[in-house]
Amino acid sequence: MARPITPLLSRERIFAAALAQVDATGTLALPRLARDLGVSTSSLYHHVKGGREEVVEGIRGLLTEGSMPTSRHEGEGWREFTHRWAVQYRAAFAAHPAAVPLMTAQTVTHPATLASYELLAEVLHEAGFGDEELLHAVTVLDCFVLGSALDAGAPVDVWADTGLPGSRLSRAVRATRLQPGDRSLRSFQLGLRSLLAGLDELRTGHPPAAAGRS
Amino acid sequence: MARPITPLLSRERIFAAALAQVDATGTLALPRLARDLGVSTSSLYHHVKGGREEVVEGIRGLLTEGSMPTSRHEGEGWREFTHRWAVQYRAAFAAHPAAVPLMTAQTVTHPATLASYELLAEVLHEAGFGDEELLHAVTVLDCFVLGSALDAGAPVDVWADTGLPGSRLSRAVRATRLQPGDRSLRSFQLGLRSLLAGLDELRTGHPPAAAGRS
Repeated sequence: MARPITPLLSRERIFAAALAQVDATGTLALPRLARDLGVSTSSLYHHVKGGREEVVEGIRGLLTEGSMPTSRHEGEGWREFTHRWAVQYRAAFAAHPAAVPLMTAQTVTHPATLASYELLAEVLHEAGFGDEELLHAVTVLDCFVLGSALDAGAPVDVWADTGLPGSRLSRAVRATRLQPGDRSLRSFQLGLRSLLAGLDELRTGHPPAAAGRS
Repeated sequence: MARPITPLLSRERIFAAALAQVDATGTLALPRLARDLGVSTSSLYHHVKGGREEVVEGIRGLLTEGSMPTSRHEGEGWREFTHRWAVQYRAAFAAHPAAVPLMTAQTVTHPATLASYELLAEVLHEAGFGDEELLHAVTVLDCFVLGSALDAGAPVDVWADTGLPGSRLSRAVRATRLQPGDRSLRSFQLGLRSLLAGLDELRTGHPPAAAGRS
């Protein structure tokens, strides 16, 4: 029997092609996705009846399933777990910056992603976070991780030389360029530790003071 | 004299149309931008010789000039200033989530944006941050602000009901939905206070402990 020239259309193929399109063009357009796959738009919709939203959730699943934690290690404290959760989450999106705004623009419905958030919520609840504090904590982590994933794909020099005499920013950029290792990752680790310390104060009912003179 | 049917092409018109395209389509394509403006691609390049990069910097200027702080208030401490800087920066991008990955993908060269970062760097330097700590602090704030700007445009329900019995995440989502005011803004304020507390420890040489058992 002759092999079909075009492989059978599947949700897996659709989601992989959709992610490739987002990486290449910065956005997701379903008519173009159908063309990329060599099928009609109606064939595409036959596999993803929920349309664009369903494709975005498919990309979310592709990036998070198997990448975000779904179990807790034996004896792992909430800060250790949350640290690991954030590191793995950042890594999942770091290579796909253009996907980030698609992810934040719609409600998370992918079961694998939800399961990882649910585990984080359980760990935070067990550590003593109240319902509202818990959701704030998850949101704050989410914002920082996604911003850091974008930074991970940023150019080595985030800021051009200001050209101003005695510029503090340019001096700091030059000083940091001399340090070994991954600038973005070091900043992420440092910010994450700060956030976890701040969240610990929220958990124990001693929230950090509001911005004041110092 | 008859008025020309098409207004004269200018950098201002180009950048405004580019931002409108990013908001509408999620990305920036120069051939389409020329079509939107009713001009040839070569006319467009005549005004922005640096091409796509220059247009992205133009969008950056449009969003940050007049929005990000360029002066310090009388007697304003570093935490107060940094808090204000982050709040204004988030507000500048909150209505334009699709622009965020374009901004992080290239080196900041717009003079107005650089001037605001330079002022932040001066304030942090004066508060006692060393060169490398200073750049980490700026990066951490940048990541959190841009992630929060994306969250500001997120749907009211960030996470769908997990459907799991006794789900902690769904319970927290429901509890938080009952709270008045802007969920995203409250999370941002809370995360920002945590970050500023953490950065203060960095400044004073008492960095928050690494993630450990708790």
